[in-house]
Amino acid sequence: MIAALCGGVGGAKLVRGLYRSVPPETLSVIVNTADDVEMWGLRVSPDLDTVMYTLAGLAQIGAGWGIEGDTFQALGMLRTYGAPSWFHAGDRDLGTDIYRTWRLESGASLTAVTDEMRKALGVRAAIIPMTDQPVATRLHAEEGWIDFQEYFVHRRHQVSVDGIRYDGAETASPASGIIQVLQAADAVVIVNSNPVLSILPILAVPDIREALQQASGARVAVSPMIGTGSVAGPAGDLMGLVGQAATSAGVAALYAGLIDGIVISERDCRQRAAIEALGIAVLVTDTLMRDEADKDRLARETLDFARSLR
Amino acid sequence: MIAALCGGVGGAKLVRGLYRSVPPETLSVIVNTADDVEMWGLRVSPDLDTVMYTLAGLAQIGAGWGIEGDTFQALGMLRTYGAPSWFHAGDRDLGTDIYRTWRLESGASLTAVTDEMRKALGVRAAIIPMTDQPVATRLHAEEGWIDFQEYFVHRRHQVSVDGIRYDGAETASPASGIIQVLQAADAVVIVNSNPVLSILPILAVPDIREALQQASGARVAVSPMIGTGSVAGPAGDLMGLVGQAATSAGVAALYAGLIDGIVISERDCRQRAAIEALGIAVLVTDTLMRDEADKDRLARETLDFARSLR
Repeated sequence: MIAALCGGVGGAKLVRGLYRSVPPETLSVIVNTADDVEMWGLRVSPDLDTVMYTLAGLAQIGAGWGIEGDTFQALGMLRTYGAPSWFHAGDRDLGTDIYRTWRLESGASLTAVTDEMRKALGVRAAIIPMTDQPVATRLHAEEGWIDFQEYFVHRRHQVSVDGIRYDGAETASPASGIIQVLQAADAVVIVNSNPVLSILPILAVPDIREALQQASGARVAVSPMIGTGSVAGPAGDLMGLVGQAATSAGVAALYAGLIDGIVISERDCRQRAAIEALGIAVLVTDTLMRDEADKDRLARETLDFARSLR
Repeated sequence: MIAALCGGVGGAKLVRGLYRSVPPETLSVIVNTADDVEMWGLRVSPDLDTVMYTLAGLAQIGAGWGIEGDTFQALGMLRTYGAPSWFHAGDRDLGTDIYRTWRLESGASLTAVTDEMRKALGVRAAIIPMTDQPVATRLHAEEGWIDFQEYFVHRRHQVSVDGIRYDGAETASPASGIIQVLQAADAVVIVNSNPVLSILPILAVPDIREALQQASGARVAVSPMIGTGSVAGPAGDLMGLVGQAATSAGVAALYAGLIDGIVISERDCRQRAAIEALGIAVLVTDTLMRDEADKDRLARETLDFARSLR
C-alpha cells in the first residue's frame, strides 16, 4: 500500500508516475481541499479534480487545471450576464462541479462524491479529500486577508503577501479512510506540490499530522525546489511565510519530524549535509519532470528510496 | 402597452412577432414557470429561457428549447458520472441555469434575475415570470402524480394521463409588476401556447386571473388548435383533462370570461358561431407560423383585432 499527499498540478505529475509504477488499486492519494472555492454557487475542488483528471488521462496538457480540449461556452454566458469570469472553468469541468455540488446538497460527503467520480472516470487508485469539512487557505495582503483563488487565479499570485492561515484545519477531521491508509501504507510520499499552499493545509489537520508522525511505513517527500525557487508557481516566494528558505533544505526543515527521507535535485546536492543533519535521509536525482518517462522514473526512484529506508 | 401571456416554444414564435410589431419597450411578456424544475441542483426555467432566447435571437431553430449551436460537454460529463441526462441542457444553456441558481441563492428574486439576464442579452421587452414562488404542474398517470418534465421531456408526453394540477398556484402571488402591466395594457394577448400546460398555470394564480378579468384593455387569445389537434405538442390530448374539446371552440370555452376575442384558423371557420355564442369575438385567419414573416403577420393581425375590440 502506498499513500501520497498531494496538491494540484506539480504534484499530480508525480502521482501519475506513482499510479503507473504500482498496482493502481494499492495507491491512495490524499488531496488538499483548502483551495476549494464556491464559484457561481458551485463547489469547485481544483486539486481533487486535477489529480482525478490527471489519473484519468483527461488533464489539460501543460496547464495546471481543467480538461484537455474543453470548451468555454457556459463561462461565456456567465460573462455575458456579468458574473465573475476570471475563474476559467471549462464546460466538461463544470459538469464535474455541477455533479459535485448536486451530490453534496443531496447529503453525500465530498469523500463519497469524489469516489463516485473517480470510479466513473476509470481511475483505479483511491482519491481522498483531506477532510469533508470546510478548510480555507487565506493569505494576508496589503488590504487584508484574501481567499486562495483570489490570490492564485484572479491575481495570478502577483500580489505581495505576508501571512497565511488555513481556516478550519485545526478543528477538521480527516476524511474517512485516511488514518487507516496512513497506518497501513508501506510508503507515504509527500509529492512535490507547493509545500505552503498544498501540503501544509493537509498537515494542519491535527489527526493527519499525528497519523503521519506515527506511520510505520517509510515517509518520503519529493522537493519541488530546484536551486532557490520552485519549478513552477509561487512556492519559492511563500516559504518565507513559514520561516523557511526557498530551498530543498527549507522544505526538509518544514517537514522535519514527519519524513524519513527527501528526494532533491542534483543541482541541490550541496544541501545534502544540512538536510541529513536534521535526521532526514537524502536521495539526489533529477527531479524535473519534462515528460511521462520522467514522471515514471522519478516515481520509481522515490518508491525504491522509500523501500531502502524501511 | 401590450401584455402577452406565454409558455414555451409555440407561443414564443408569436411573441417574437409581437416584439417586432410594436416598440419592444412597450411589450411585457408574462411567462409560465410551472414547468420549472431543479436538475442537478440547478434551477431550470424552460419557458422563461425559451422566450428570452427567442427574443434575443439565440433560440435553437426548429427546437422547443435551448440555444442554436450549443454544445453538450457538461451534459456528457454528468452522464459519465451517472447523473440523469435525459434533460438535454447545452453548455451555454447551463450557463444561464448556473447564473440563475447562483443569484437565487444569493437572495435575488426570479423576477430580478430574469430581468438582469434579458437585459444582458439585449432583449428590450420585459420578461416577467408569473410568480417568484414555486408552482409545479403535475400530471396523473397510471403510477400516480408525476412532474411535468418527467412527463414532457423524459417520457416525451407518450404516457397516458387522466389528471392535472398546478401545485402552489392557488397561494402564489403574481411577480412584481404583473398586475400593473395587466391594468395598463391596451391589449392583452394570450398567445398560442399549450392552454392546459402553459396558460392555465398562469391563470391559476388568483390575482392574475382577477386582474385579467378586470383588465380594461382588449383581451385576445390566439388558438393553438387547427382542426382537432394542436400544431405541435400534446395540447390536443390534454384538453379533455379540463373538460374541453381539443378544438379552437374548446380553447375559447376554456378562456371564457377572460378574453374578448380569439384568433382561429381558417380551417376552423365553422366554429365561429359556437364561439361567438360565448360572447367572444372571432378573427379567422392563417394561424400557422411557418416562417418569420408568418409570425409578424399573425402578430399584426392579432394586435389589429385587439384594437378593433376596444
